[in-house]
Amino acid sequence: MKRKKPSNIKAKQSIPATERQTAKDDSEMTALALQRGNLSPAMQAYFAKCQEKLGFVPNVLSAYAFDNAKLEAFVAMYNDLMLAPSGLSKLEREMIAVAVSSHNKCYYCLVAHGAAVRALSGDPALGELMAMNYRAARLSKRHRAMLDFAVKLTAEPWAMEEEDREALRQAGFTDRDVWDIAAVASFYNMSNRVASATDMRPNSAYHKQAR
Amino acid sequence: MKRKKPSNIKAKQSIPATERQTAKDDSEMTALALQRGNLSPAMQAYFAKCQEKLGFVPNVLSAYAFDNAKLEAFVAMYNDLMLAPSGLSKLEREMIAVAVSSHNKCYYCLVAHGAAVRALSGDPALGELMAMNYRAARLSKRHRAMLDFAVKLTAEPWAMEEEDREALRQAGFTDRDVWDIAAVASFYNMSNRVASATDMRPNSAYHKQAR
Amino acid sequence: MKRKKPSNIKAKQSIPATERQTAKDDSEMTALALQRGNLSPAMQAYFAKCQEKLGFVPNVLSAYAFDNAKLEAFVAMYNDLMLAPSGLSKLEREMIAVAVSSHNKCYYCLVAHGAAVRALSGDPALGELMAMNYRAARLSKRHRAMLDFAVKLTAEPWAMEEEDREALRQAGFTDRDVWDIAAVASFYNMSNRVASATDMRPNSAYHKQAR
Amino acid sequence: MKRKKPSNIKAKQSIPATERQTAKDDSEMTALALQRGNLSPAMQAYFAKCQEKLGFVPNVLSAYAFDNAKLEAFVAMYNDLMLAPSGLSKLEREMIAVAVSSHNKCYYCLVAHGAAVRALSGDPALGELMAMNYRAARLSKRHRAMLDFAVKLTAEPWAMEEEDREALRQAGFTDRDVWDIAAVASFYNMSNRVASATDMRPNSAYHKQAR
Amino acid sequence: MKRKKPSNIKAKQSIPATERQTAKDDSEMTALALQRGNLSPAMQAYFAKCQEKLGFVPNVLSAYAFDNAKLEAFVAMYNDLMLAPSGLSKLEREMIAVAVSSHNKCYYCLVAHGAAVRALSGDPALGELMAMNYRAARLSKRHRAMLDFAVKLTAEPWAMEEEDREALRQAGFTDRDVWDIAAVASFYNMSNRVASATDMRPNSAYHKQAR
Amino acid sequence: MKRKKPSNIKAKQSIPATERQTAKDDSEMTALALQRGNLSPAMQAYFAKCQEKLGFVPNVLSAYAFDNAKLEAFVAMYNDLMLAPSGLSKLEREMIAVAVSSHNKCYYCLVAHGAAVRALSGDPALGELMAMNYRAARLSKRHRAMLDFAVKLTAEPWAMEEEDREALRQAGFTDRDVWDIAAVASFYNMSNRVASATDMRPNSAYHKQAR
Repeated sequence: MKRKKPSNIKAKQSIPATERQTAKDDSEMTALALQRGNLSPAMQAYFAKCQEKLGFVPNVLSAYAFDNAKLEAFVAMYNDLMLAPSGLSKLEREMIAVAVSSHNKCYYCLVAHGAAVRALSGDPALGELMAMNYRAARLSKRHRAMLDFAVKLTAEPWAMEEEDREALRQAGFTDRDVWDIAAVASFYNMSNRVASATDMRPNSAYHKQAR
Repeated sequence: MKRKKPSNIKAKQSIPATERQTAKDDSEMTALALQRGNLSPAMQAYFAKCQEKLGFVPNVLSAYAFDNAKLEAFVAMYNDLMLAPSGLSKLEREMIAVAVSSHNKCYYCLVAHGAAVRALSGDPALGELMAMNYRAARLSKRHRAMLDFAVKLTAEPWAMEEEDREALRQAGFTDRDVWDIAAVASFYNMSNRVASATDMRPNSAYHKQAR
Repeated sequence: MKRKKPSNIKAKQSIPATERQTAKDDSEMTALALQRGNLSPAMQAYFAKCQEKLGFVPNVLSAYAFDNAKLEAFVAMYNDLMLAPSGLSKLEREMIAVAVSSHNKCYYCLVAHGAAVRALSGDPALGELMAMNYRAARLSKRHRAMLDFAVKLTAEPWAMEEEDREALRQAGFTDRDVWDIAAVASFYNMSNRVASATDMRPNSAYHKQAR
Repeated sequence: MKRKKPSNIKAKQSIPATERQTAKDDSEMTALALQRGNLSPAMQAYFAKCQEKLGFVPNVLSAYAFDNAKLEAFVAMYNDLMLAPSGLSKLEREMIAVAVSSHNKCYYCLVAHGAAVRALSGDPALGELMAMNYRAARLSKRHRAMLDFAVKLTAEPWAMEEEDREALRQAGFTDRDVWDIAAVASFYNMSNRVASATDMRPNSAYHKQAR
Repeated sequence: MKRKKPSNIKAKQSIPATERQTAKDDSEMTALALQRGNLSPAMQAYFAKCQEKLGFVPNVLSAYAFDNAKLEAFVAMYNDLMLAPSGLSKLEREMIAVAVSSHNKCYYCLVAHGAAVRALSGDPALGELMAMNYRAARLSKRHRAMLDFAVKLTAEPWAMEEEDREALRQAGFTDRDVWDIAAVASFYNMSNRVASATDMRPNSAYHKQAR
Repeated sequence: MKRKKPSNIKAKQSIPATERQTAKDDSEMTALALQRGNLSPAMQAYFAKCQEKLGFVPNVLSAYAFDNAKLEAFVAMYNDLMLAPSGLSKLEREMIAVAVSSHNKCYYCLVAHGAAVRALSGDPALGELMAMNYRAARLSKRHRAMLDFAVKLTAEPWAMEEEDREALRQAGFTDRDVWDIAAVASFYNMSNRVASATDMRPNSAYHKQAR
């Protein structure tokens, strides 16, 4: 029996640059026609700092920029949850972000926070696993318990009970950590939906980061 | 054929006050042991104002009060979404809050925001319908479209597409209104989960309000 | 940072009485155009008794009254299940009714039987919890086991097995009690669907009962 | 390439009669230990009639026979729904019974009412299709609309709306027919659950009927 | 109270032969218009063998016969999985086939492989139980574990973990058996979908086999 | 209001190489202990060709290599479906593979076929979108119809009907194309499950391909 050769995956049926999925993602950030509002000096400085350190302003911030009060509220909550002192490392918070976003299939958050997991961990496959199926990852008991709680809270919030909190405590988390896991998972249940409702596009730069 | 009399629903099998569901709801606000943090003057004033105008501090605020920065971020976002100028009336925003919380079966938010719908509308049954099944309510096309969007965004955020936004525009909503509907629905997808994850109890006073 | 005042929930955007959700609920009981049939003397007496003791005839009875045989069969089964001697108290049977109706989001049954739970228990919040999420209630092991069985039977009848019956026996229920729990839960899976299929409206009087 | 012969499905790995699935189905009718109660003369006559005409008493009746009042209520409702005059033929009512039972995966009802569809229609494959997937059957528009309504009412009762009733009217059904379709579908949502909760076994005779 | 007689299920509302569900199943095998391709001598011999031993060529083979390479690949995989030496008996493989097809509600596979379970076991009710709800069957621990794995793999492949494989090992299966259970269940997840996507009809002869 | 700086995602909390997710993926390919079988000359040549052209043997082939007959059957079907002449381009077939694998959350197939989509299209974000949520991609009507069919067939095979096939024909597909879309989608519903059941790991090389 004569067999076909294995597929040569380098043989491209290449899509022209102007038709690529990222072609407009840095200019048409959402499906809503909302004009940039007047930003406060604090927000202007924040955008400048993003530009300087990341090379771009994350599109989620640009999306909120039609209204300075909304932008400030979002930034304050985001920065507190993801960057303030916590029993959870920044990487752990990003892992929660991606696992939650995977359940909700949120393109924006999977791309942006998948990049963060890759960068913070130095383990690109960890970012892929959080985005694809966290159950297939080789996780410590701590991380598995953390993500089981976050994903159950995402999928069936009505079924959360004391035994779910107790499982976190058994894995070494304090009550304050339980709050933080819950709060980060809950925040992405909000962000995922704002992004999905508005067809928010991730900055094209995220795709190549930390591969 | 001899038949039994109709049930006399006044014949109580009464539960003693100390065993009622609300017995500890005003003192044990969540299942997490978190100490009250130091509140900023702004937050102290805010709590005082709640006490003065509502007669109590909503338990969600007390729950966040273990950390002033988290409390401030929550209050800022909540007040902006629910009280700031918008193409949506305050009642409409509360209707979204309750319909979303119904999908997520969040006891805290159903009780607290169900009371708000009753109070703002003067139509207690409207509050019940938002909590039980918004599809059974007699709604204007505007309100039905608004809630269909909010509940779909809650149930299957991955399936939101241009046609969902277009349905809102057809019902008379602007792009800014679309943002606000999405943002309010998304916020309660966060709040519902923080409440469910921590077993947050609603203040007992809500139950009797505006019946 | 200047903050907005807490919402004053007494500031109504009041809905006129003629547009309230209950406006027609006592006259247009279902979405089907069915003429009242000839009632037997037994059923006429039963309706008179309802009027005398409750102040109204429950709309579900009026809905069935287009055909006396159907009405009699429904009344016989309802009265046997909810009022006949059983190892389950009347309150327990009403708790099952509401928890099942919550899963099925049946407006009629949630309103009518939610009132019954409030009245029988003297604990209005218990009625709310059965309607919103029984898992958030502070329940005895007996009641939790009873409702877990009833709601699983509602949600995934195909998955019921000996271990589910055994869990009831472990919680102190006899085999006859198991039948009664199953029969009441099953009955509301029928009633919920008749009500939802016909858009049956609850009598407006239920809303204010036993708050 | 040498190939294996097609499977000869007559080569049995036969299971002894005492281990067959039906071995105890005619003697151990449910998983509950409930003693036969005293039957009224009417019920005794009904059982005798079953024995005479069917050759056996359906196990569902034997299961209810621990309590004469419950048995009478069940029989009255069953006979009214399935046998009384209606715009739906008896076959149509049995088709609904089986399609609903298929969604609920109720072994008892699929076997007993599957036999009824085969017998009433003279088309054994129609019984199989109702039990396996009614969408794969070659149905008239009337029957497809009828079953779509019945199965949606079974799967998502909370989503029934005027457009569902209107689809039945467009297919030629009267409002009375809508009631009957709803009532039959709802009844099997009850019966399926009583059977599944108690592990009710179908009489072994059903399997071979009308093949 | 006068009661109606039990239903006489022999009173047919018979459907004419030309309108029966099987009327065209042996001639119009799928909904796709695909011409028979040129079959290799091996495939011609295989079809002839089917005709000789079964009395017909299974419609799934006729459906694939528009392209000899596709047919050969399907036959090779099918025969290896279902007939080659394995720690699983042929009956066990057919039980998996039917339980998987039941979850997927695949009419073709339920009919064809349901017949195989009846024939191989000599226990017609076993075939019915696999098609209706395997959880209601009286199964050995081995068979229950095998089907639990196969059906979970069908329903939520993303949730398979080491504990699922370990449950099979505890029930006495080797790692090679685990592969075979997985491979057979997976194969029917493919076949069910090819059949459902193309409206593949089972040969009418299957219905009466081994009843 | 003083604000925190944007997160510097380059500040790694780096995971050591030996603990990275890919550490053992090229040596421990599945969770089953199965010995390499004797490969036929054809399969030996095929493995050599893979090594030469891809630089490695895909782990799925190594996983099947415990049994030459199973390996040959898999390779024959795979090569026919993915590489043989078809109205679908190779890229289109890989897009289906990834969109189906996304629904099933299959880590192996998402990594391996995600790489293929990136390579064939030259548009890395297209691979991400297929893996994350195909509904968020900017697709032609042809591709959207193709993926809607493939994903519905994956999620609810029981609900496929003529209107689904007709939608493909309206999008320009022939009946043969319909078969090919169905066959590719169905094949990955098999492969995804074999991979998930056995915890199959993707070769580490895929992660960096065509980024």
